[in-house]
This record gives sequence, structure tokens and C-alpha cells, in this order.
Amino acid sequence: MKYPTTIQNLIECFKKLPGVGEKTAERYALAALELDDNIIELFSKSLTDVKTKIGRCKICNNLAEEEICEICKIKDRDRKTLCIVDSPKNVVIFEKLGIYNGLYHVLDGLISPLDGKNPEDIKLNLLFERINNENISEIILALKPGIEGETTSLYIKKMLENKQLKISKIAHGIPIGIDMEYIDSLTLELALEDRTNIS
Amino acid sequence: MKYPTTIQNLIECFKKLPGVGEKTAERYALAALELDDNIIELFSKSLTDVKTKIGRCKICNNLAEEEICEICKIKDRDRKTLCIVDSPKNVVIFEKLGIYNGLYHVLDGLISPLDGKNPEDIKLNLLFERINNENISEIILALKPGIEGETTSLYIKKMLENKQLKISKIAHGIPIGIDMEYIDSLTLELALEDRTNIS
Repeated sequence: MKYPTTIQNLIECFKKLPGVGEKTAERYALAALELDDNIIELFSKSLTDVKTKIGRCKICNNLAEEEICEICKIKDRDRKTLCIVDSPKNVVIFEKLGIYNGLYHVLDGLISPLDGKNPEDIKLNLLFERINNENISEIILALKPGIEGETTSLYIKKMLENKQLKISKIAHGIPIGIDMEYIDSLTLELALEDRTNIS
Repeated sequence: MKYPTTIQNLIECFKKLPGVGEKTAERYALAALELDDNIIELFSKSLTDVKTKIGRCKICNNLAEEEICEICKIKDRDRKTLCIVDSPKNVVIFEKLGIYNGLYHVLDGLISPLDGKNPEDIKLNLLFERINNENISEIILALKPGIEGETTSLYIKKMLENKQLKISKIAHGIPIGIDMEYIDSLTLELALEDRTNIS
């Protein structure tokens, strides 16, 4: 004897979400019972829609409802600068910041030989194609810090070394407002290495 | 510039769930993109189904897909004992334990004058009706410990005092495996009050 089948099904579905266990799923399912009809309708519709309507931008591989994503469509963005990110989520993070006016390229992962992820498994070829065909002058690498991010950055740098391109990577260092003693040694090392002249 | 509308809608829906903020909702929505088609279909269907198919049992007010819930339907349960709980979730908790063989009564809340919840706002009348019409010999109060639970328990006890009924409440006390120093004083007081003779 558990919940009625419909609720049990809903609990099982919630459990497929990251970090959601039995108790949280139960809580969500019971909360869903109390949601307004129009919210439930939108919820149910959005779930099927994300699977059917959302694809990838054929230029930058960002999430898109049409062939080209909302960002690539904007005419007055700086089309000579590409910010390389590993997931569509990071595009949104940069866009919320509102200070970057170039375009993006979403790799969908990082090179990680240990996990069997080779350069051809992420959208690197699409990136190199873009660089060959479009008039791009700067590449900003904004990949997740760590071994995989570094490997991917190095690979991209190597593949592009004979192009006339400015390649930069976002700074890694101490975040604002964090006590130095809580910073891991790798970050501290990078912060020291990437020190900037202020004199 | 944010996510495509479909994803943004889904994020807003996830945010209606208890304890889900912007970041968690984003994480869930992006995870939904990766779910299998059949899971998404079930997810979407279950959401609308819980609103349309799930009602309350007309006997005990538990969640039910038909007029009578799965528990009230079982013929060989002890129909003389009622366990009074405040939410359908607690029915499941007792059922998972598997040691209780009586029936339930779901109040759907507790008396709480401060929040404007009076006895008539919860399913107490249905309970008293049941006691009048059915052949019930024992009532077990299993309400959430605290002032509201106590008030509701006392109210039920008072309303039933001239009936030939055994009324009990589940024991409140120190949970197994918890260090005494972490127990709040009310629990400790109850544990002392409800002490049992072992000699």
C-alpha cells in the first residue's frame, strides 16, 4: 500500500531529477496536488515542449527554439568575438551579467580522456569550422576550471595557433569576499600566476 | 536574454514547488531536457492526472483515485480502529511501516486559531459522523507534535468523552540513537511524563 498509482508515477518522475530522492519527490508530488490548474497545465505542456521544441542553434550550439538561437539572431552584437563555454547554462550566466556583447560557442562538455570524452565528442569541429568561415578575431575561453577545462583550453589553443586570432581565458583567482584561508591551493596558485600589474 | 521561452516556462513551474529557487529550478529544467521521451510523457501525463484523477476517499478523506481509497477497500483490515493523521502523507508513512492493520482518518490540517483554522475547517465532522455510524472501538491520535497537534487532540478527546471509546495517542519521546543533549525541552518533558513502568 502506497500512494495511488498516479501520485506514485509522479513521484517516480520527480526522482529522475538531479538530487531528488524519495522524500523530496513525495513532497513535490503532494505539492503538485495543490497547484492551480493553469500552472499544472503549463507545467505539463512545458515538459513535453522542451523535448519537442528545444533544439540547438546551428551556429553556436546554444539551446534554441528555432534554427538560430536568440543571441545569434541579434544583429548588433560583436560578431568577431566568441566566448567558448561548456554548457548552455553558462551562456545564461554571462547574459544575466549583461556586459558581454559578443557571440558564444557551446561545446557541450569538456575533453576528458578518463571518461572517454575525446575532442570529437564535443562541438569542437563546429567551432573550428566557424573560425574558418566567419570573420572572428578573438576567442575567450570560459571553461569550467579544473583539469578537464585546462585540457580543453590547451587543445583549442594548440589547434588555433597558426590562425591570426587573439585567444584569452577568463581569470581564475580569489573570489570577492572570501577569506583567503578557505581558498584551495590550485586557485591560489592560479591567482598568483595570473597576477596583474597595478603600479 | 535568458533561456528560450519553453525552458523559461518550465523553470517558472518548477519554482512553484516547495523549497525550489531559481538555481534549482534551472537545474531541473536543464535536466528535463535530457530525460527519455517516455519519462517526459509519463511526467507530463501524471501532472495533469493528479489534478483530474485524484480525489479524496469519502470514508476516510485519504487520497484516492476512486470514491473509496485503497485502504478502506481492503476487506480484512481491523475496521474498529481508526488512526487519526493530519495529512495523507502520514498514512503512507504508517503503511510503509506495515504493522498497523486498522483504518485511518485524514484530518487535512490541525486546529490553529492563530492561523484562522477552526474545528470546522478540518475534516472533524466527517470523523464524528464515522464514529456515530460505524462500529469503532479505538481511536489512535497520531497528529504532529506541537501546540496545534495537542489542541486538536484535546478537542477530539473532549468531543468524544461520552462515547464508549478507547482513545490513545502515539508516544512522544526521545528518538532512538539521538544524543540526549540535542533533544528539545518539550520532548524531554513529554518523555518524562509518558514514562512507562518496567519493573
